Amino acid sequence: MFYKIKKLLIGEPLKSSQLHHEKFGIFKGLAILSSDAISSVAYACEEILWVLIPIMGLLAYQSLFYVTISILVLLSILIFSYRQTINSYPKGGGSYMVSKENLGELPSLVAGSALTIDYVLTVAVSSCAGSAAIISAVPALLPHRVTLTVLIIIMMTLGNLRGVRESARIFSIPTYFFIFITIIMIAIGIIKYLFLGYVPQPPVGMPEVYGDLTIILFLKAFSAGCTALTGIEAISDGVANFKAPAPKNAKIVLGLLFLIVVIIFGGVSYLSTIYHAVPNLEKTVVSQIAEMVFGKSSLMFYLMQIATTLILIMAANTAFSDLPLLLSFIARDGYAPRQFTKRGDRLSYSNGILALALLASLLVIIFNGESHFLLPLYAVGVFMSFTLSQTGMVMKWIRSKEAGWRHKAFINGFGAFITLIATVVIGVNKFVHGAWMVFILIPLGVFIMKKIKRHYDTTAEQLTMEGNKFPEIDKDLVKHFIVPVGGLNRSVIKTINYAKCLSNDIVAFHVSTDDDETKKLKQKWEKYKIDVPLVIEKSEYREILAPLEAFIKAQNYSEHDIITLVLPQITAEKLHYNALHNQTATLLRSSLLKSRNIAVITVPYII
Amino acid sequence: MFYKIKKLLIGEPLKSSQLHHEKFGIFKGLAILSSDAISSVAYACEEILWVLIPIMGLLAYQSLFYVTISILVLLSILIFSYRQTINSYPKGGGSYMVSKENLGELPSLVAGSALTIDYVLTVAVSSCAGSAAIISAVPALLPHRVTLTVLIIIMMTLGNLRGVRESARIFSIPTYFFIFITIIMIAIGIIKYLFLGYVPQPPVGMPEVYGDLTIILFLKAFSAGCTALTGIEAISDGVANFKAPAPKNAKIVLGLLFLIVVIIFGGVSYLSTIYHAVPNLEKTVVSQIAEMVFGKSSLMFYLMQIATTLILIMAANTAFSDLPLLLSFIARDGYAPRQFTKRGDRLSYSNGILALALLASLLVIIFNGESHFLLPLYAVGVFMSFTLSQTGMVMKWIRSKEAGWRHKAFINGFGAFITLIATVVIGVNKFVHGAWMVFILIPLGVFIMKKIKRHYDTTAEQLTMEGNKFPEIDKDLVKHFIVPVGGLNRSVIKTINYAKCLSNDIVAFHVSTDDDETKKLKQKWEKYKIDVPLVIEKSEYREILAPLEAFIKAQNYSEHDIITLVLPQITAEKLHYNALHNQTATLLRSSLLKSRNIAVITVPYII
Repeated sequence: MFYKIKKLLIGEPLKSSQLHHEKFGIFKGLAILSSDAISSVAYACEEILWVLIPIMGLLAYQSLFYVTISILVLLSILIFSYRQTINSYPKGGGSYMVSKENLGELPSLVAGSALTIDYVLTVAVSSCAGSAAIISAVPALLPHRVTLTVLIIIMMTLGNLRGVRESARIFSIPTYFFIFITIIMIAIGIIKYLFLGYVPQPPVGMPEVYGDLTIILFLKAFSAGCTALTGIEAISDGVANFKAPAPKNAKIVLGLLFLIVVIIFGGVSYLSTIYHAVPNLEKTVVSQIAEMVFGKSSLMFYLMQIATTLILIMAANTAFSDLPLLLSFIARDGYAPRQFTKRGDRLSYSNGILALALLASLLVIIFNGESHFLLPLYAVGVFMSFTLSQTGMVMKWIRSKEAGWRHKAFINGFGAFITLIATVVIGVNKFVHGAWMVFILIPLGVFIMKKIKRHYDTTAEQLTMEGNKFPEIDKDLVKHFIVPVGGLNRSVIKTINYAKCLSNDIVAFHVSTDDDETKKLKQKWEKYKIDVPLVIEKSEYREILAPLEAFIKAQNYSEHDIITLVLPQITAEKLHYNALHNQTATLLRSSLLKSRNIAVITVPYII
Repeated sequence: MFYKIKKLLIGEPLKSSQLHHEKFGIFKGLAILSSDAISSVAYACEEILWVLIPIMGLLAYQSLFYVTISILVLLSILIFSYRQTINSYPKGGGSYMVSKENLGELPSLVAGSALTIDYVLTVAVSSCAGSAAIISAVPALLPHRVTLTVLIIIMMTLGNLRGVRESARIFSIPTYFFIFITIIMIAIGIIKYLFLGYVPQPPVGMPEVYGDLTIILFLKAFSAGCTALTGIEAISDGVANFKAPAPKNAKIVLGLLFLIVVIIFGGVSYLSTIYHAVPNLEKTVVSQIAEMVFGKSSLMFYLMQIATTLILIMAANTAFSDLPLLLSFIARDGYAPRQFTKRGDRLSYSNGILALALLASLLVIIFNGESHFLLPLYAVGVFMSFTLSQTGMVMKWIRSKEAGWRHKAFINGFGAFITLIATVVIGVNKFVHGAWMVFILIPLGVFIMKKIKRHYDTTAEQLTMEGNKFPEIDKDLVKHFIVPVGGLNRSVIKTINYAKCLSNDIVAFHVSTDDDETKKLKQKWEKYKIDVPLVIEKSEYREILAPLEAFIKAQNYSEHDIITLVLPQITAEKLHYNALHNQTATLLRSSLLKSRNIAVITVPYII
C-alpha cells in the first residue's frame, strides 16, 4: 500500500547506472540557474521604496535612482569576481567548497551554515510570495494561505523527489516568460509615458514629507535593495552542469544574467519613478505598475501575475536542487548526518529534499505565511557567504602566485571588501527586524556541525579494526535468555520454543500491574505446563522497563556476560494495523539496546 | 535528557495506588462541568444576528426575541430529559454508553464518532476564540495567530498530562468570574438604559433592509443559535464524579445551569436588542455591548475580555478531560486502539490527550486559526448524539416497563423527537457551509471503529491457547543464521562472535553498491581471517532489503525453518546521536519481521 502510493507519487525506482548528469547549454542554463536572481529583482525595488517613502515622500523617487545605481555597481563587482571563480573551479565552486579549500574549517562551516539557512529561507519566502500572488487572483483562498503555501512546498518536494531531469525542459519556460513579459512592460511603460503623453494618476497614500537622503537612510535603502543580488552565486556553483566548454558557457550565462538584471531592475526602478508606485501591503509595486501600463484587469496584467508566481516557484525550486547537493558535500566531509549522502529511489538526494521541505514548512507556519516578516532574515547570510567565497579566492591567488595573480587577487579582494561592507550594513540595519536570529542560527549551525564531526570521528576510532583487539565472547556467557511475557498466548509459546532451541538458561519475566491478570497468567502457566520458570515482579508505575532492568541487575552477571532478551512481537500483515498493538517490544528493544551487553531477539507472530 | 524534560513539564510519575477520583460538590461541579455550555452562550446570540441582520436590518432585534425563546424552550426539554438520564445512569450516562446499552452497536458507534469529532472541534474552536480575544488586547500578536493558538493547545495538553487534580481548584474561578461579570454587565446595561436614560449610538454598518421573518429564515437563525446548547450533556456524563448523593447533586447542578443559561443568554439577547449590537469580524457582540455598558477602554471592559478568554480555555479543557475518557471506554470495547486504555505516568489517559491535541492543532492550522469557518461543523454532531442518547432512554423505559415508564418514555421521546428535528434543521441549513464534512467524517469514524474491532477479534482468535495446537520448532531448523554486513569493523566482529555461540550455520551477507568498497571488504575479510562465508550480491537500486529477501528465498528452506537474522547495531550513548547513524538495522528489522519465519537478533555496539 505504502509502496504503491510512493510509486504513484514519485515513480519507479531508478538504477544507479541510470544516473547521468544532463548537461545544459546557454539557453537552458540561463533559465535554470538564474531564476532565483531574476525573481528577487522583482521585489527589490519595492523594498527600497518601503524605506525611502515614509521619510522622503515624493523625493524618494529621485533617490531610488542613486540606490539602484549603487546596487548595480555592486552587482558588476560581483560578476567580475565570480568570473574568476568559474575559471578556477570548473567543477563548481560554491562558497562552502572555496572557503574549505582556501580558508580552512571554521570559515567553510560558517559558509555552509549561512547557505543552509538561506536556502531554507529562499523556499519559505518564495513560496509565501507565490501563494500571495495566487490569492490576489482567487481571494476565496485567503483563509487557507498557510495551507496553500505548504501545499506548494509539498508539490515542489514531490517534483524534486521524482528527480528534476524529466521536468527540466518545462523549467525553462517560466524564466523566459517572466523576462519577456517584464521587458514588454518596461518598453510599453516608457513609450506610453514619453511618447503617448500618458499622465499617471496622483499617487495614493503618499505621505507629505520631504526629508533628506542622509547617509544612514541611503545605507538602509541600499541594504533593503541588496535582496536583488541573492541568487547570483548559483551559476558559479553549477559550472559542472554546463556543456563543454563549461567555464566559457557559464561565463556567457553570467554575462547575460548581468544584462537582464540591469534591464529589469533598472527598468522597474525607472517605471516606479515615473508612475509613482507606492508600496503597500495589498498590492506589490510591480503589479501596480503592470496595472497602469497594461490597464486594470487586462489580460496582460493577469499574465504578469502568473509569470511572477511561476518564477517565484522556480526560485524556490533552485534551493531544492542546490541545498541537498550542498548537504551531501558537507555530509561527505563528516559535518552533517551521513544520510544526506545517500541517493533515494529516484537518484535524488531525498533526505536533503525532505529536510528542506520540513524546515521551510515550519518557518511558513511559524511566520503565518507572511514573507514580509521573513525578508529581514534573508540577505545577511547571502552576503556573508559572498564575502567568504571572495576571500577564499584571494587566498588562493596569494598562495598560487600564478601569472597575473596580483591583478586577480585585487579583483576578488575588492569584491570581498565590498561584500563585507554590505554584510555589515545589512546586519546592522536589519538587526532588530530579525537579522539577530541569523546571528544566533549561524553559530548554532557551526556548533552542531562540529559536534557531528566529532561524533563521527569518535565512532570511527572505536570501530576501527586497527589495533586488533576483538571482543572475545565465551559461549556459555551468552546463553542467559529472558523472555518478557504480558500474558500467555500462541505468540509467547512460539517465542519460548524458539528460545529453547538456542539456550537452556531461560527465564520468563512478567511485570504485574493488575493482580487478576497475573493470577490468570499463573493458572495458564500451570495448565499448559510451560517448563520455563516464571518470575513475577509487581510494578506500581504501570511500566515494564524499570522492573526488568532491576531484575537483570539483581542477577549479578559478570561484565562479560551477554544477556539475550527474547521478545514475542505480534505483527499484522497489513502494516497499518500494527498501530493497534502495544509497541512494548519496540519500546523495550530501543531502551535496552543502550546497554552494552544486552542482545535482543524479536520473534514475529504474524496475524 | 528526554526524561528530565518530561519530568520538568509533567512532573514525577505517580503510582497506580495514588489514583483516587476526587469527588466534587455542587459548587465545584457547576464550575467544572458547565464551562462548555456557559461559554457557548457567549457567541450564540452573535451567530443568530449574523443570520437575521443581513435580511431584516433593524427588525432583526425583534425576531431575536422569538429565536431566543425557542432555544430556551428546547433547552428546558433537554434539561427534563437529562434529569431522567442522571437518575438511570448514576455512574455516568454519556450518549455512547446509553446508545450501546439500549440501541446496539451501530448507534453507539455513531454517537462515539460524533462525540469524538465534536470534542476535537470544541478544542479547536475554543482555543481559536481564546487567542482571538488575546490578540484583540495585544494586536502585535496578529501575525502569529496560528502559532499562538497552537501554543494554547500545547499548554492545555501539558496541564492535562500532569493530571487535572492539582489544578481543579483553580478551575472553578474562571467560570464564576465569567458568570459574575456577565451578570453585572446585564444588570448595569438594563439599569443604564431603562432608568438612566442612556441612548445608545445609532448602529454602524446596519443594512437598510426590512425583510420578513420567514419560516426558512427562522429555522436558519434557530440552527445558528443552537450552538448555545452544546456542552449541556457534560453533567450527565459526569454524575459519577459528584459526592453522594450523586444523582441528586447532579440534578441540582443541572437546574442551576439552566438558570444561568436563561439569565445569560436571555440577558445578552436583550442587551443586543436595546444597544443595537451589529456583529462584525473585528469585534464580538459581547465586547461591543461591554464597551457601551462599561465605557471604552474601561477596566471592566478589559476584565470582561479576560473572563471570556478564560472561560473559552476552560471549555476547551472540558474536552481534554472528557474525550480521553470516552476513548478509553470505546477502546475497552475494542473499537479504538488499545493504547487509549493505558494511563500514563501521571495517571491521565495520556494517549487520548495527545491524540486530541494533535487533531485539534491540525484543524487550527488547516483553518488558519479562524473559528468562524469551523463553527458550521459543530452543532450537527452534538444534536445527533443528543438524539441517540434520548432514543436510547426511550428504549430503556419500553423494555423495563417500570413504574411510570409511559410518562418517562414520553419525556425522553419528546426530547429525542425535538433534537432529531434540530439535527435535521441544522444539518440542512449548515450543509454547504461545512456540515457536509461531518456527514463524511461520522460514517468514516464508524467504519474505522468497526475495522479495528474486527482486527482485534481476529487477533484474539489467532492467539488463543484454546485448541492447543502449539507451533513445534525443531532445534536444527532454527539454526540458519545470516549476518548482513556493510563493512568490517568491531561491531560486526562482535556480532559474528555472538552468532557463533548460538549456531554453526552462519553466513555473512553483503550488498554491493560500490565496487571499491566491496573490494576493500573482501581484502579485510581475508586479512583478519574471518571464518564465516561471505556472500556478495550486487544491487543496482542502492538498497539491501530486496537482495536479502531474494537470497533467503534462493536457499529453499522448508516452511518450518526459522531463519535468524543477526544485525550489528551501532548505538550512541547519547540518544540524539543515533540520528547520525544509518538506520539500516531498524529498517531491516521492521521490514523482515513481516515474514512469518524470520527472527531478528540485534547485537548492540555502544559508542
